[in-house]
Amino acid sequence: MTELKDYLREKKELLEKALDEYLPPENIYPEALYQSMRYSIYAGGKRLRPILALTACEAVGGNWQKVLPVACALEMIHTYSLIHDDLPGMDNDDYRRGKLTNHKVYGEGIAILAGCALLTYSFEMLAKRCSAFVDSATIVRVIGEIGEAAGMAGMIAGQVVDLQSEGQETSLETLKYIHAHKTGALLRCSLRVGAIIGDASQAQLDKLTIYAEKLGLAFQIMDDILDLVGDEKKLGKKVGSDLAKEKATYPAFYGIEKSKEMARQLVEEAKKELDDLGEKGKVLSLLADYFVQREY
Amino acid sequence: MTELKDYLREKKELLEKALDEYLPPENIYPEALYQSMRYSIYAGGKRLRPILALTACEAVGGNWQKVLPVACALEMIHTYSLIHDDLPGMDNDDYRRGKLTNHKVYGEGIAILAGCALLTYSFEMLAKRCSAFVDSATIVRVIGEIGEAAGMAGMIAGQVVDLQSEGQETSLETLKYIHAHKTGALLRCSLRVGAIIGDASQAQLDKLTIYAEKLGLAFQIMDDILDLVGDEKKLGKKVGSDLAKEKATYPAFYGIEKSKEMARQLVEEAKKELDDLGEKGKVLSLLADYFVQREY
Repeated sequence: MTELKDYLREKKELLEKALDEYLPPENIYPEALYQSMRYSIYAGGKRLRPILALTACEAVGGNWQKVLPVACALEMIHTYSLIHDDLPGMDNDDYRRGKLTNHKVYGEGIAILAGCALLTYSFEMLAKRCSAFVDSATIVRVIGEIGEAAGMAGMIAGQVVDLQSEGQETSLETLKYIHAHKTGALLRCSLRVGAIIGDASQAQLDKLTIYAEKLGLAFQIMDDILDLVGDEKKLGKKVGSDLAKEKATYPAFYGIEKSKEMARQLVEEAKKELDDLGEKGKVLSLLADYFVQREY
Repeated sequence: MTELKDYLREKKELLEKALDEYLPPENIYPEALYQSMRYSIYAGGKRLRPILALTACEAVGGNWQKVLPVACALEMIHTYSLIHDDLPGMDNDDYRRGKLTNHKVYGEGIAILAGCALLTYSFEMLAKRCSAFVDSATIVRVIGEIGEAAGMAGMIAGQVVDLQSEGQETSLETLKYIHAHKTGALLRCSLRVGAIIGDASQAQLDKLTIYAEKLGLAFQIMDDILDLVGDEKKLGKKVGSDLAKEKATYPAFYGIEKSKEMARQLVEEAKKELDDLGEKGKVLSLLADYFVQREY
């Protein structure tokens, strides 16, 4: 695990440096917009999605540097979704990761606009910053995959159903839909676009997609559990806040122990999909274990 | 003008049919999202941006059918910006074009999400629906242009400054910034991407860009005037509502007559840029006159 932690630290630093280079400085007019964008990008976060993209590329034998703009675009899209999820018209959260949410600092209007600016810039960046390493047809394919995952059939649909489910009795089927779309779709996409840029074969891409789907669900189950039992300080948000809003969660349906067991089982299944990658798949295998054992 | 009106009617019908084909049906789960997207797409509108894209393509000798997905993407982005502008955290408007605004019908959360879904889908569509007519390198270029125009250095920057100017004394410089960014950038982009897909020469593209910038400003000045003196019923929003919020407008700085004269002057200058296009530039020339004489 020390090896993996070093890997994660190294990639995280590298990504945060790249994000800093891609994002415009804060002193451009209108400053509040750029400050608001950077505030949420640098409000913490594991950089899981971009790390998965880089690692998937390496796992199929590609050069991770080719994925860097795509990885940063994925992190910007993830950040936009967090800014908007916290808005008064959505979950109405004042804190995230122990810091004030974007709209509490910059106001609701700027927060909405900063989110949309990150979303829009992610596509602009894909179009403008990849062409040195990736051919146009692949860029177009990647933009299509990311648009689909982040959009109305993916992340946004998940957030719509999540929003509609608040305060309602929610079926297990609906809970699964929310997880698969709200968080699963972009995680899945992160692995896929990394692998596509790494020139994965169709068979490799199919297996990594299944790995991603199982890992995404395991990750979400652990998130639900951590929210329920976690240490408020460690997590940086009010523990049990999902439960307080009567949000559907895995532990609410299955209990904590059964949910943990399901997450572990999913991780084992996910790791099996990596068999054909041999030694190159090792980091993805370690990542799967790490993100389900986590206590951060 | 009868000829132009027929042209506009024909293109508008064609675009609305294309939008209907590109947008998913309303009966997909979660229905509220798809209904909300369609509600605002079909809440009226001149389809000015997509018409400019089609017409620019024809003006440089291209086939307008190649621009259809791009034109629809531009209209989706324009619609997303209207949905978000009306939100309680922005202009807080209850009506637009005589109809309830999106959030008054679907709620704030869904309205934010429907806006972002239209924005995201526009990029997805560019990536997935153009490849039959347009080569990948051009698609990537068009996505870059649209991202830039709609994003933090374009439309969003304009909305940020507009938001910050409300209730403040606003300089003429700031007013010009707002117009050039909030509405000008996407209008300019609409002409440019149409011309790019039509395989315009650099000289043609440069001239059409100047045409677009002048037309965009003229259009905005007329919008300011119409808002001030217009017929409430015709415009479908509360007349003088910008003034009531102390928004900066051209007539507030220059008076109505001087503003009209400035708009007419800009249109004349814009039309000069079309000279080299000869007969092919005629529709753009008529359009410039039409949109400044308008009383719709």
